[in-house]
Amino acid sequence: MEILVTGATGFVGSHLCRSLLLSGHDVAIIKREDSSLDNLTDISKDLSIYTYDGTIDSLASALKDHNTTTVLHLASLFIAEHSADQIDSLIASNISFGVHLLEAMKCAGVNKIVNTGTSWQHFNGAAYNPTSLYAATKQAFIDLQEYYVRAEGFSAINLLLFDTYGEDDKRPKLINSLHQFADQGKALDISPGEQQLNLVHISDVCSAFSVAISHLNSGRYCDNSSYMVRTKKCYSLRRVIEIFEEITGKQLSINWGGREYRKREVMIPYSEGVMLPDWSAEITIQKGLSQYK
Amino acid sequence: MEILVTGATGFVGSHLCRSLLLSGHDVAIIKREDSSLDNLTDISKDLSIYTYDGTIDSLASALKDHNTTTVLHLASLFIAEHSADQIDSLIASNISFGVHLLEAMKCAGVNKIVNTGTSWQHFNGAAYNPTSLYAATKQAFIDLQEYYVRAEGFSAINLLLFDTYGEDDKRPKLINSLHQFADQGKALDISPGEQQLNLVHISDVCSAFSVAISHLNSGRYCDNSSYMVRTKKCYSLRRVIEIFEEITGKQLSINWGGREYRKREVMIPYSEGVMLPDWSAEITIQKGLSQYK
Repeated sequence: MEILVTGATGFVGSHLCRSLLLSGHDVAIIKREDSSLDNLTDISKDLSIYTYDGTIDSLASALKDHNTTTVLHLASLFIAEHSADQIDSLIASNISFGVHLLEAMKCAGVNKIVNTGTSWQHFNGAAYNPTSLYAATKQAFIDLQEYYVRAEGFSAINLLLFDTYGEDDKRPKLINSLHQFADQGKALDISPGEQQLNLVHISDVCSAFSVAISHLNSGRYCDNSSYMVRTKKCYSLRRVIEIFEEITGKQLSINWGGREYRKREVMIPYSEGVMLPDWSAEITIQKGLSQYK
Repeated sequence: MEILVTGATGFVGSHLCRSLLLSGHDVAIIKREDSSLDNLTDISKDLSIYTYDGTIDSLASALKDHNTTTVLHLASLFIAEHSADQIDSLIASNISFGVHLLEAMKCAGVNKIVNTGTSWQHFNGAAYNPTSLYAATKQAFIDLQEYYVRAEGFSAINLLLFDTYGEDDKRPKLINSLHQFADQGKALDISPGEQQLNLVHISDVCSAFSVAISHLNSGRYCDNSSYMVRTKKCYSLRRVIEIFEEITGKQLSINWGGREYRKREVMIPYSEGVMLPDWSAEITIQKGLSQYK
């Protein structure tokens, strides 16, 4: 299938492109003019690479040129706690670009999309309660996508991602930081650590996108509903760090409470939603961490 | 009370400012640099007038300078059926400006807002089904506002407006067009005319905002819920035109079916929502049209 991926230069997007190529798909990516291809060096020759110049036309041309059947929309700006001067970037990345993409799909006659949401849209288990303005922009995009589903006959599935991790992750996220601080022998300031985490390995995230693509093709579950891409088991941050030390044999020097909880720290990950049908996570935290030493 | 109004230069906004001044409020308006004050000439000396230069700072300064307690947010770009080149304007007016306003309120310590939604968020009576991309931008804004309510302690009420009409209306809307075409003796192309309309007189719309302000002050109903500002009775477009002719004594030459229904014409106005508590419309269509001859 001819698939076009946004956000392909990031951690999840680059793994996803690799997994799609392995499954035999034709994969194009849309990147910003200033995006680095560092995460894609091994596969860049196998990808069709298009550039978004800020216009709907640039997206429509790419979609047509690639004979795209399905779009996987992962591009996103993540900001846990925003400041006023980041508002315009949040809207540009998480709303305007997405609506440009939807409108370009309409122009190009492409009507299948897997969009990426976040469990953070559901603070305290609510049907909707945004943990952050970032999460609210994700919800806003889904609202806008609803127009294209209802009025323009689009098929859309939203995957609600939780914490993702895996090999080659260069993001400043937990597991990465644990490796770095252990390797450098530095003390790591951490919140009191009672928050539960739901850590999903990147290979499970990639398989969720594949399952979503097959749902789009079979016409099931694609009315703009949102589905959780979640492992069954949560662990407290304290327990994750114990497991990390057991599995990797690395020693960490943790300064518990050296950092405060965020104002709206997610203490218990969302679990009230619907799991993505016909998918479940395969990689336990133990297995995931042992692959990623 | 110190109230700040956005969209004050429009039809609803200008009537609202007049009504707020009559009730003894201190009224400031925020306008774009290129907005005309034509609708406000009679009251402009009684208003504090601020200009939005595209920055959050310009809004925060205005809010502080006016010692604002409550914001009434009416600014909006209405487009019934958008084209691709109108997407950026829709997002700028209906999303970015609104989030700038919310963030400026946070900076200025103002946390009460009445926002203006549309019955078009509810095509076919759905909890959410946007009639148009315009309506989807309205929903998106409400979901962004949810962040400020949940995380920043804002009080917010959304008023869902239906068709509004009244004296001094210069918008190219139904009742206005009927007057113009009758006065000029020209034939008016109209859809088959079976759609039901819910016409709310501007004075009832203004009283709804007053009631919403008192709810904000009493702390009731202000958790970002949406309330209908709707008259009890709907009339078909055909019946509205008959009533217009009866009341005004004007004769219309109507070419029924000379225009097609819109792709997503609202045939039956939304009625499944909750009416604004402690408010009801007072002006019948007969009374409204007789005031507005």
